[in-house]
Amino acid sequence: MNYMESLGQKAKQASYAAASAGTVLKNQALTAISEALVQNTDKIIEANQKDMENAVKNNMTAAMQDRLKLTAERIQAIANAVLKVVALEDPVGEEIKGWLRPNGLRIRQVRVPMGVIGIIFESRPNVTVDAAVLCLKAGNAVILRGGKEAINSNLCLVKVMQNALASVGLPEELVQLVEKTDRETAADMMKLNGYLDVLIPRGGAGLIQAVVKQATVPVIETGAGNCHVYIDDSALPEMAVSIADNAKTQRPSVCNAIETLLVHKEIAESILPEIKKAFDKHEVIIHGCEVTQKILGDCVIPVTEEDYFKEYGNYEIAIRVVDSVEEAVAHIQKYSTSHSESIVTQNMNHAEYFLNHVNSAAVYVNASTRFTDGEEFGFGAEIGISTQKLHARGPMGLLALTTMQYRITGNGQVRG
Amino acid sequence: MNYMESLGQKAKQASYAAASAGTVLKNQALTAISEALVQNTDKIIEANQKDMENAVKNNMTAAMQDRLKLTAERIQAIANAVLKVVALEDPVGEEIKGWLRPNGLRIRQVRVPMGVIGIIFESRPNVTVDAAVLCLKAGNAVILRGGKEAINSNLCLVKVMQNALASVGLPEELVQLVEKTDRETAADMMKLNGYLDVLIPRGGAGLIQAVVKQATVPVIETGAGNCHVYIDDSALPEMAVSIADNAKTQRPSVCNAIETLLVHKEIAESILPEIKKAFDKHEVIIHGCEVTQKILGDCVIPVTEEDYFKEYGNYEIAIRVVDSVEEAVAHIQKYSTSHSESIVTQNMNHAEYFLNHVNSAAVYVNASTRFTDGEEFGFGAEIGISTQKLHARGPMGLLALTTMQYRITGNGQVRG
Repeated sequence: MNYMESLGQKAKQASYAAASAGTVLKNQALTAISEALVQNTDKIIEANQKDMENAVKNNMTAAMQDRLKLTAERIQAIANAVLKVVALEDPVGEEIKGWLRPNGLRIRQVRVPMGVIGIIFESRPNVTVDAAVLCLKAGNAVILRGGKEAINSNLCLVKVMQNALASVGLPEELVQLVEKTDRETAADMMKLNGYLDVLIPRGGAGLIQAVVKQATVPVIETGAGNCHVYIDDSALPEMAVSIADNAKTQRPSVCNAIETLLVHKEIAESILPEIKKAFDKHEVIIHGCEVTQKILGDCVIPVTEEDYFKEYGNYEIAIRVVDSVEEAVAHIQKYSTSHSESIVTQNMNHAEYFLNHVNSAAVYVNASTRFTDGEEFGFGAEIGISTQKLHARGPMGLLALTTMQYRITGNGQVRG
Repeated sequence: MNYMESLGQKAKQASYAAASAGTVLKNQALTAISEALVQNTDKIIEANQKDMENAVKNNMTAAMQDRLKLTAERIQAIANAVLKVVALEDPVGEEIKGWLRPNGLRIRQVRVPMGVIGIIFESRPNVTVDAAVLCLKAGNAVILRGGKEAINSNLCLVKVMQNALASVGLPEELVQLVEKTDRETAADMMKLNGYLDVLIPRGGAGLIQAVVKQATVPVIETGAGNCHVYIDDSALPEMAVSIADNAKTQRPSVCNAIETLLVHKEIAESILPEIKKAFDKHEVIIHGCEVTQKILGDCVIPVTEEDYFKEYGNYEIAIRVVDSVEEAVAHIQKYSTSHSESIVTQNMNHAEYFLNHVNSAAVYVNASTRFTDGEEFGFGAEIGISTQKLHARGPMGLLALTTMQYRITGNGQVRG
C-alpha cells in the first residue's frame, strides 16, 4: 500500500463518522475550527513566514507572494468565512423524491454525502480551510493537496483543523493533507480509485488540464471561461454599454469576465463608440472585425479566428458585428467554453431564442456575466465553478459535494 | 482532424437540433425508428447473418452467439421497446428550481440535454437501438461504438435509424456509429474532450475498467456489484429465506444478485439449514465462516477474505455469521462495491441504522436486492446502473442523460 492509498483508506474510514454526524455536531466542529484558527494566529503566521522566506529565495512574483501571505486580518477573514458555512443549511438527509411501486415497494431518493473528496490546488492557503469546511459541512472526508510553496502554512492549518475535529469527538482523518508535494504522489492521488469519490482541481488551466488528462477517478472540471455578451438591435443603449463594460473591465482576470462582444449590425454604429469610451478608461485593447474597424477606426487590431477562441484574461477584447441573434448564437456555439453568456435585448422572442439555444452553464438576459458565482447565486459559498455537464454545472455550493442514495422498504418482496 | 474528431464535430453540430426539438418532434422520430426497424426486418437479419457467419468462423461461444443473433421476433421486441420510450415523459425543459436574488436577478435552473453522449458496448445489437433512442428522447446526439463482432448488424441498424431521423427532418448525425472497430479509434473516442460530454461503457468488467483507466472525457462507471443480504435476529424466517434465495439464485449472473449473506448469530442455527434447503435446488456452492461450517457441516467450503471481495456471478455464495447489525454494516463497508444491500428485520432501529450507515446506491429493508433496475424502479427504461457517486447513482433512466443550465434574467444588473 503506497502513501496515497494509506491516506485514502484513513479518509474512507473517517468518512463514515462524518456521514452519520448530525448537523449539530458538524456545526460544532466548524465552529471549533473557526475559533482555533483565531487562537492559533501566531503559530499560523509563523509557519506562513517560512513559506514566505522560501518564496523570496525562489524569486516568486509579487502577485503570487501576495496570494501566499497570511496576516492576522486574513486569518480572521478565513475564520469568519467558516462561520458563514456553519450558517448554511445542511443538505444531507433531504428526501429528494419518493414514490410507491405497484408491488408495494416504497422508494425514496435521499441526499447523502459524497464520501471522500480530493482537492488539488495551488498556493493560496485560504483554499485549504475554505475547501475543507465545505466538504465537512456536507458530511465528507477531504484529502487536500496544495502547492509545495504553501506546504508549511498548510501543515499548520490542517493540524489546527484536525485538533478542532478531535475536540468535538470527530476523527482527525476527516481532513488530511498530502504532505508529499512531489508529482508522483499527485499522480497517485489522481488514480486513487476505490477511495476518492471525486477529485476537484482548483487553479490555473495547466493544473486543471493535467488533472483531466491523468485522473482515473471522477473529476469535476472547473475554470475555463470564454464568455460572451451579445448586444441585440433592440437593446437599450445605456444598459448595453453598462453591461458590456462591467462584464469586460470590472475584473478581467476571472473566468466569468467576457472575451468577445457581439453586436447587432443595426445598433453597431451608434453603440460601439459609446462602448469604446467606457473601455478607454481601462485602455482596453480591441480586436475587431471589419465592420468594427470601419466604425472605430485605426485603434482596432484586425481580429483573427484565433482571437475568438482566446481567453484573454486581461483588458483585451474581440468585437464582432453580426447580422442577427441567430448569427450571434452560432458564434457562441462555435467558440464558447459554455461558461456564461448574456444577451442585452428588449425583444422577448430574441431573449427566448438566446436562452433556448445557448447551451452554457449560465445564460443571462440583460445582466452582466460577472454574476456567475456561488455568493452571487445565493449559495453562501462556492467550491468552484464547474465547466462540465456531469454532476454539477456552474457555481458549485454544498449540493455539489453530495450524492444521493435510493432507500427501498418492502415487506418481503422478491423478484419474479 | 482525425476520424473520431470528425464524428465528434458532426455530433456536436447535430446536438443543437436535438436540443431545440420539442417532445412532439422527438417522439415522431422515435416512432419512425420503431416502424423502420420492423419494415427493414429482412435487411437487418441479412446483415446480422454476416456477423453470425463470422461468429461461427471465429468459434464464438454459443452463449455469445445467442446474444448476437437477431430474429424477426427480437427485432419486433426492439421496435416495441422504442415505443415504450416514446411513452416516457420528456425530461427536457423542467424548471427544477427558481429564486429571486435581492438585486432583482431571477435565477432559474432548467433541465437541458447533456449534448453528445458516447456509448461503448460489446456485442449485443439490441443495445445499439436501446441506447440511441434513450439518448435521442433526452435531446442528445449519440456516438455508438459496438463490438466488431456485431459491426454488420450495427451498420444496418444505424442506417435504418438515420433514415428515420431524416424522414422527420432531423439530422442523421444525431446517431452515428464508430465504423472503425480497432482499439486505437476506441482510445481516440475516450479522449474526445470538447465533443463528448459523457461516455458510458456498457459491458463486462474488462471493458469498463479499460474505459475508466483510459478516458479523459467524463465517464459514468457501471456494473460492478458485490451485493449483500443481512438477516437480522428479528427477521421473519420465511421472509428471510425467500429474500436470500431470490437475491442469490433468481439470476445469479447479474450485478444486483448477492455474493455474500450475513446472518445474525441468534438466528443462524435455525435459519441456515432452511436457506441451504432453498440453495440446494440450484446446487449453490457455499463458502462459510467457522460458525456456518459448524451449523451446515462438511458441504461448506471454508471462506477466505478473498471470497468476501469476490463477485461470483454464479451459483456460489459466501456466508458469514455476525454478532450484530453493526458488525454486518462494518462488513459491508469493507467489502461491498456499494451497489445494493438489504437487511431483513422486524426491528425498526436496526432498519434505520442499516439505512443510515450503508452507503450504497440502493439500500433495502425487507426486499430482494434484485429490484435495483430501471424498469423495477419505474423509470420505464434504463441506460445502465451507475456504480459511481458523481452525477447518477443506481439505475439510470432519462434524467441521467440530461444536465441543467442556469437561466438568469435581469434589467441591467452589473456587479459592483
